[in-house]
Amino acid sequence: MKKYKGCLCQIDLPLTYKDNQCKLPICPQASGGFKWHLHHHHHRRSSTASRFTGKFENSFSISYLHRSREMAAAPTAKIRRSRFVIEPEEAEQMRKEKGLETLRDLLPALLPAARQLARPPISKFHVGAAALGSSGRIYLGANIEFPGVPLHQTIHAEQFLITNAALHSETSIPFIAISELPCGHCRQFFQEIRSASQIQILVTGDFRPLSDFLPNPFGPSDLLHEEVPLLLEPHFNDLIEEVGEFGGELEERLRKAALQAARASHAPYSGSVSGFAMADGEGKVYAGSYTESAAYNPSLGPVQAAFVAYVVAGGGGGVGGGGGALGGG
Amino acid sequence: MKKYKGCLCQIDLPLTYKDNQCKLPICPQASGGFKWHLHHHHHRRSSTASRFTGKFENSFSISYLHRSREMAAAPTAKIRRSRFVIEPEEAEQMRKEKGLETLRDLLPALLPAARQLARPPISKFHVGAAALGSSGRIYLGANIEFPGVPLHQTIHAEQFLITNAALHSETSIPFIAISELPCGHCRQFFQEIRSASQIQILVTGDFRPLSDFLPNPFGPSDLLHEEVPLLLEPHFNDLIEEVGEFGGELEERLRKAALQAARASHAPYSGSVSGFAMADGEGKVYAGSYTESAAYNPSLGPVQAAFVAYVVAGGGGGVGGGGGALGGG
Repeated sequence: MKKYKGCLCQIDLPLTYKDNQCKLPICPQASGGFKWHLHHHHHRRSSTASRFTGKFENSFSISYLHRSREMAAAPTAKIRRSRFVIEPEEAEQMRKEKGLETLRDLLPALLPAARQLARPPISKFHVGAAALGSSGRIYLGANIEFPGVPLHQTIHAEQFLITNAALHSETSIPFIAISELPCGHCRQFFQEIRSASQIQILVTGDFRPLSDFLPNPFGPSDLLHEEVPLLLEPHFNDLIEEVGEFGGELEERLRKAALQAARASHAPYSGSVSGFAMADGEGKVYAGSYTESAAYNPSLGPVQAAFVAYVVAGGGGGVGGGGGALGGG
Repeated sequence: MKKYKGCLCQIDLPLTYKDNQCKLPICPQASGGFKWHLHHHHHRRSSTASRFTGKFENSFSISYLHRSREMAAAPTAKIRRSRFVIEPEEAEQMRKEKGLETLRDLLPALLPAARQLARPPISKFHVGAAALGSSGRIYLGANIEFPGVPLHQTIHAEQFLITNAALHSETSIPFIAISELPCGHCRQFFQEIRSASQIQILVTGDFRPLSDFLPNPFGPSDLLHEEVPLLLEPHFNDLIEEVGEFGGELEERLRKAALQAARASHAPYSGSVSGFAMADGEGKVYAGSYTESAAYNPSLGPVQAAFVAYVVAGGGGGVGGGGGALGGG
């Protein structure tokens, strides 16, 4: 296998973990043996923007103790309600129970629960977000901060929210509620969705279009042709699967998951599509796709996206598919 | 000297250079032996936010060939006009020559020159910016992109502009002109200046307040006490100077410059004030201060700030104090 090179910074977040410099903030209380497997699939486009000039691949593993036996034994029943994804039937049920007219009206009511899911060990500033997808599903998002790594690795609630929707193949999120005023960085990240300016956002009061929060935007249309797929639209990046020996069954699953995530990556500006996968101690795999922004800096790395997948699935002491105790706070 | 640790990511930009993975984009054509000395001074605040728990320091050097003999011999006279800083007397002279009523009216006329100073090897998208400081000085800014490193390391023209003003101890920049609509990331970065909403920005047409571009902002007042100094206001971070042997005379100058930059660093959110200094082959030192944003992700690293100082001084084939030929695409 080729030696890892060329994409240090895209995965600098876990690399610092390797050196035991950083704490894993998504499970502050937690513990026991917990093994990370990381897999990265990366294509690097040359500056001529029309051809791939190289291909780098790497897989490595990191051991990190962060789940306590106590946590593993904690009761899970009472927190099943605070998941990051609410199916259409359940959302409809909640709407009726609350006597609300439309599903979008349910979003602000979900923000306190979303805020509880935040992991902001640096700022202590909890932000929650909720979106209604065109599928009828509701997605929650919360902010995650990583002590010991640069602030630009932070995942805002809004980026969590969009990544969560993308993970579930949601193609549009016309209504969003957020517990705090979105920062400019997030307003710009929203811009990466087609017809972004029409997304309806509620912070306090009524829903208002994104164009009210980011008037006269700079966005994908300033740099891309109209037919290039945008965020939340299907991506099928042309990547070739490596054939050969890559280790055991887990490594094989990691490799496939990272490849699939790289194929779904939105990286039209640099051409450096990439995906990232990691496995927990039980062998469950979590993958994330790199997502670029027309404004470059607000781009979300594949590692962050994989962290979102991990948290959404109930990892890190959060709630959801995997059970476990309530995180945050 | 203590071994370098804990701030890998803050200086991941030059570290990738060390491995010769990246090209230095600020001098695409350029030449001859060119040695970088990097020096980093870093304090890391614990999560209790009120005391410093550690101090890390490191200096190392990187060799990078990037100036051609031809460039070094190029005539410099004709490009003296395209500098990044225009002194009040010269600005006044230019205003009169152009028959303009006020100095602010001069800003849009400077944008074509500013755009020429951009180094965007990835996007090829040149952005120029110009600001009138309250001192009467005019500052130019241009975007810089770094191939081979993540997009969030990009320096936008607006961040270049503000860093340039900060380098010259400018305390406010009430008028700004930009050649393109600013992205949300930059609108948020502006927010870090006191009374930011009143900054007058011209893209096309008339000057309009920043609040027109980023209404209902999230900003420093959401996280900081009113008396905490903001961007462009004087900072005197309480850092202790290391005493001991640190190498030769150049290393000593680098160390002092990095320390001074760290003292001026705006890092009220993480407490990780830091500064960075590097020297060119002639022993000239360029330093930069880390600047945080209330929105975390738009924070500008000290390495980027030092690059701005280098380019402003005429390095990398740019124009200004050091002479040299005109850079840009």
